[in-house]
Order: sequence, then structure tokens, then C-alpha cells
Amino acid sequence: MFRNLNEIIEKAGKINTQKIIIVGAEEEKLLKATKKASSLGYIEPILVGNKDKIVEIIEKNNINFPSMTIIDAETNEEKSNISCEELYKHKDSFMMKGLVDTSDVLKAILKRKKDFMVSNLISHISLIELPYYEKIIGLSDTSVNIKPDLNGKIDIVKNSRDFFNKLGYELPKISILSAIEKVNNKMQDTIDADYIKKLNQSGELNKCIIEGPISLDLSIDKKSAEIKKYDGLIKGDADILITPDLVSGNLLGKSFNYTPNSKFAGFIVGTKKPIGLTSRASSIENKLYSMIIGAIISAGDDDERTKDVINN
Amino acid sequence: MFRNLNEIIEKAGKINTQKIIIVGAEEEKLLKATKKASSLGYIEPILVGNKDKIVEIIEKNNINFPSMTIIDAETNEEKSNISCEELYKHKDSFMMKGLVDTSDVLKAILKRKKDFMVSNLISHISLIELPYYEKIIGLSDTSVNIKPDLNGKIDIVKNSRDFFNKLGYELPKISILSAIEKVNNKMQDTIDADYIKKLNQSGELNKCIIEGPISLDLSIDKKSAEIKKYDGLIKGDADILITPDLVSGNLLGKSFNYTPNSKFAGFIVGTKKPIGLTSRASSIENKLYSMIIGAIISAGDDDERTKDVINN
Repeated sequence: MFRNLNEIIEKAGKINTQKIIIVGAEEEKLLKATKKASSLGYIEPILVGNKDKIVEIIEKNNINFPSMTIIDAETNEEKSNISCEELYKHKDSFMMKGLVDTSDVLKAILKRKKDFMVSNLISHISLIELPYYEKIIGLSDTSVNIKPDLNGKIDIVKNSRDFFNKLGYELPKISILSAIEKVNNKMQDTIDADYIKKLNQSGELNKCIIEGPISLDLSIDKKSAEIKKYDGLIKGDADILITPDLVSGNLLGKSFNYTPNSKFAGFIVGTKKPIGLTSRASSIENKLYSMIIGAIISAGDDDERTKDVINN
Repeated sequence: MFRNLNEIIEKAGKINTQKIIIVGAEEEKLLKATKKASSLGYIEPILVGNKDKIVEIIEKNNINFPSMTIIDAETNEEKSNISCEELYKHKDSFMMKGLVDTSDVLKAILKRKKDFMVSNLISHISLIELPYYEKIIGLSDTSVNIKPDLNGKIDIVKNSRDFFNKLGYELPKISILSAIEKVNNKMQDTIDADYIKKLNQSGELNKCIIEGPISLDLSIDKKSAEIKKYDGLIKGDADILITPDLVSGNLLGKSFNYTPNSKFAGFIVGTKKPIGLTSRASSIENKLYSMIIGAIISAGDDDERTKDVINN
């Protein structure tokens, strides 16, 4: 359990520097965050995008990278495809989305499913630090899957669980969110949530604890769980929140984001390595968290791979 | 424009004391709020519910009402029906939901549509004060309509607009929320939002300014609207947020509610008089705001009625 995003970084300690491939790097805040993460030794940037614009921003802001590569690319498609090439080429590497459309990055990934994907589905997860909650919370899916069906939701749950398992959580507590706790035939999301909970209880979906349908207050507020005498597997102590669809996730994520003193990191998951993904309006700090935590997970994955080789 | 909930109360000044009919009054926090609002001269309570329990709570907490009535009722249905009777009987009165299911209150109201309803649809609106937003914001519908179709959404917009018109807003700015700003055929909520915006532009839905589909950040964050160079009718200055369905409204409303230093009042609208409706876990302060603002609007409605009589 991590109390905040900094704790993830502190506990990770020193890691092997990871190559970060930035898809569409011609963005000022992103380059400033890259500079910072690079100075701290977490990453070595490969900047993919419009070379003139990248150089212009670097010069204007006196950004000095200890070491970096720029690869010139014009269209979003080109930037995304070249970035995937680079990702494949370098063992200790991961990607971060810059000034390109998310859909272009996803298309490039999906074209090479076998090389990059470990799940049936790509999804997004946010790691959020809230001033009123004692630990970090994961939120999925706020950005990729519009209206996931039951199978889609199960994949989203699995991707989120895997991400938290990699962070070091043995049994992350996952809330399948709804407005209520009882199954209501008029609300498909309550039926789906109940089904996913049953998959967990029967052991078909393991390495996590799942409760649902469950409201936000019972998921993250112990006092509310007490007042309502709620007797679920999660009682105001969720690690991960899964929303019924994109719009509800997007609204919830944004309101968390506007909560004063909240912090945030965002990732595409379901891929071998997480892909950093924040919105254009995100702060430098949030972009920095996404890069460093992305690097930590990327380095951890490489460690795992090494272990596997040794064990076999 | 009101900066906060207190300002609504200050600007209203002294009002005619309103009878408040509490449906299911056997709830401690609710009775404490009732005591306070009653001492301030806004309300005179008619407590409908289990008489023994009500008396027990009143005695245990030394609650002294300047004046009050208790009406004994056992089942939720009975409590709701008796409360509607009382509402009909007293001119200067409005209702507040206590320890009964919302559905029972709504059923009782719907049985007597002609007496109580002014809209095709009953909906819920929250008035929220957020520490990071310069004015109060309305949010609908977080509690009643599960999956409103286009007509349902239009009614929800109208009910919210009417409520804000009564508060004194001539042209409240209404955001029809989505995750994005462009119409996307895969997202019905964006199509509905665009349609409702067009109704407003063609003059069929007046007394408000409507933008949609629009994301939360562009609705309530001027800086984000600047960064994204957004050119809509609302640029981070919305008065009312309409969510695509209940679950997204419920999640958004609850996260607003957990934002430290936020305040909140809740109402059923579409009825002649607003019905105070907060959740059981709501604070005494939030219940108090719902009562006092309910009383102010109730008193204003009576003034309007008086005016009409004079004008005719």
C-alpha cells in the first residue's frame, strides 16, 4: 500500500535508466518534465516528432538533456509507427504519449499485437493521490473504452489488477462502481458488477479482492460504510475503482483531478510495458509522475524477465 | 450569480416562515438540522414518521422546537401519502425526505400528478459549493432518473433551468456533459447533447444558455478552456452541469461532495415546490442548507402566486 505517489518512487530506489520514447515530443510542458526525469536518472529520452519544433522548444527553454535522441517524423501515424519500432528495438524502454491523438498510438500498437500486447484489450488507468484518502487510488477506464461490454469490463479489471500487482500489491481491493449496492435489473452496470464479483469469488479472477456493485462513498469512505452498516468486502478502503463506462470515468477522474492538492499519473495498460498518457492540460508535475512511475514499472518488468531466464 | 450557498440565504433576507413536512423524521441528524432551521425562523416542522422514535430522538438530544407537529405513521407508503396530504393542505409548505426510500415519496407524488407536478418528469438537482470554483454549481441528475432518453434529458434540463430561474438567474449557463466536445456517433450522449444545444439555439428551449457536448474541464475551468483554445458558449463558467445518466451523475456528485470544504444542498424538482433530498450520510450542515434554501424557494413561489393574483 502506497500512501502517495512519492512513496512509490522512494520505495523503488535506484532503477536501471529506461529509454522513454515520446510520441509527439513537440510539447513544452512534456519536454520540461522529460528534462527533470532525465536529470534524476530515471530516463533517457528518444524524442519522436517534428524535429524543428522540438529543437525550438528545447532552445527557448534552455533544456539540456544529459543524453537524448531526436527522430524526425511528420504525421501522427508516422510518429506512432516509428515509436513502436523504437520500443521494439530497445529492451529497457517504454513509451509516453505527447502531442498525437491517442487513437493513432493505439492503432500502431494494435497493428503489432503480438509484439506489444499481453491482454485482449487496451485500457487506461490513472493513479491518483487525493488529499482526503489515505492511500493512492487507481481509476479505470477514463480515456479509451467507450462502452465496454461484460468481457471488456473483465479485461479492464484484469489490466488494472496486473498493474497493481506489478506495483507490489498482492491483493488489490477493486470496486466495480455503480450508484447503488443492490443488483437492479434496470441497471446493466449492477448486473455486470455482480458477475465480476462472482468470478472473483469462484477463483476465476484471482490476485485481487473484488466488490460490486458498490457506490463511491462506500468504496472510499470508511465513515460512510459505518453509518450505512455496509457489510461488503470493501469498506471505504478500495485500491482501484472501475467505472461502468468512459463518460462516468472521465467525469469522475476530472473531478478528482480538480480536487485541490490531488496528484495524478496516467497509463495505457494491457500492453507489455505501460504507456504514459496524460492530457495536454495536465501539469508538469503530473507528467513527471507518469514518466518516473512508468520507468519504475518498466525497469521492474525487465527484472522479472531476467529472473524468468535464470529460473528456466 | 451566487458565490456560495450562504449568499443565497443572505440575499433572500427575511422570508415568511414555511411549514416543512419531513417524510420519515426519525433521523437524528435531520432533526438537529430541523431544530436549527426552525430556531432561525425559516421553518415550522411537521414531523411525519414513527412517533415513539421521533420523541425518543428529540428527548435524547434535548431538541426544543418553538412550534411543531408530529404525525404518527408506520410504513414508508403511509409516511409518504400523509406527507402529500399535508403538503396539499398548507399553502406555505414544502417537503423534505427523511428516513424513507426516495421511490416511496416519488410514488406518492406521482399518484397525485395534477396536484403536485409542473413538469413531465421528476428529477434531482444538487447545489454545490466547491472550494476551487468561484460560484455555486447545479448538478443533475444524480439520484432519480437512471437512463433518461432524449426527452427525459430535455425535461431534466428544463427542471434545472426553472430552479435556477427561481433562484434569480436570468440565463443560467448549462453544460450538457460528456467526455469530449465533438459529436461522436458511437457516443449517444454526444448526439443528445448536440440536439439539446440546438433546441436552445433555435429558441425552443429558452431562459438559459446551453453548451454541449462538453467535458467537465471546459465547463468549470477557464484556464483549461484557454489552453485548449475552446470556443464554446461556456468557457469554464457553467452554472449547471447535466450528466448523461444517473451513474455518472452519482459518481461526479459524490466526488464533489468529498472535496474538502465543499458544501451541498439537494432537491427534487419538477414539482410545484422543491422537495429537500439529501443522502442519509449527509452532514447536518448540508441538510440545513437544503432546508433553508428549500424554504426560500418555497416562500418565493408563494410570493409569485400572490403577485399573479394581484396582477390578474
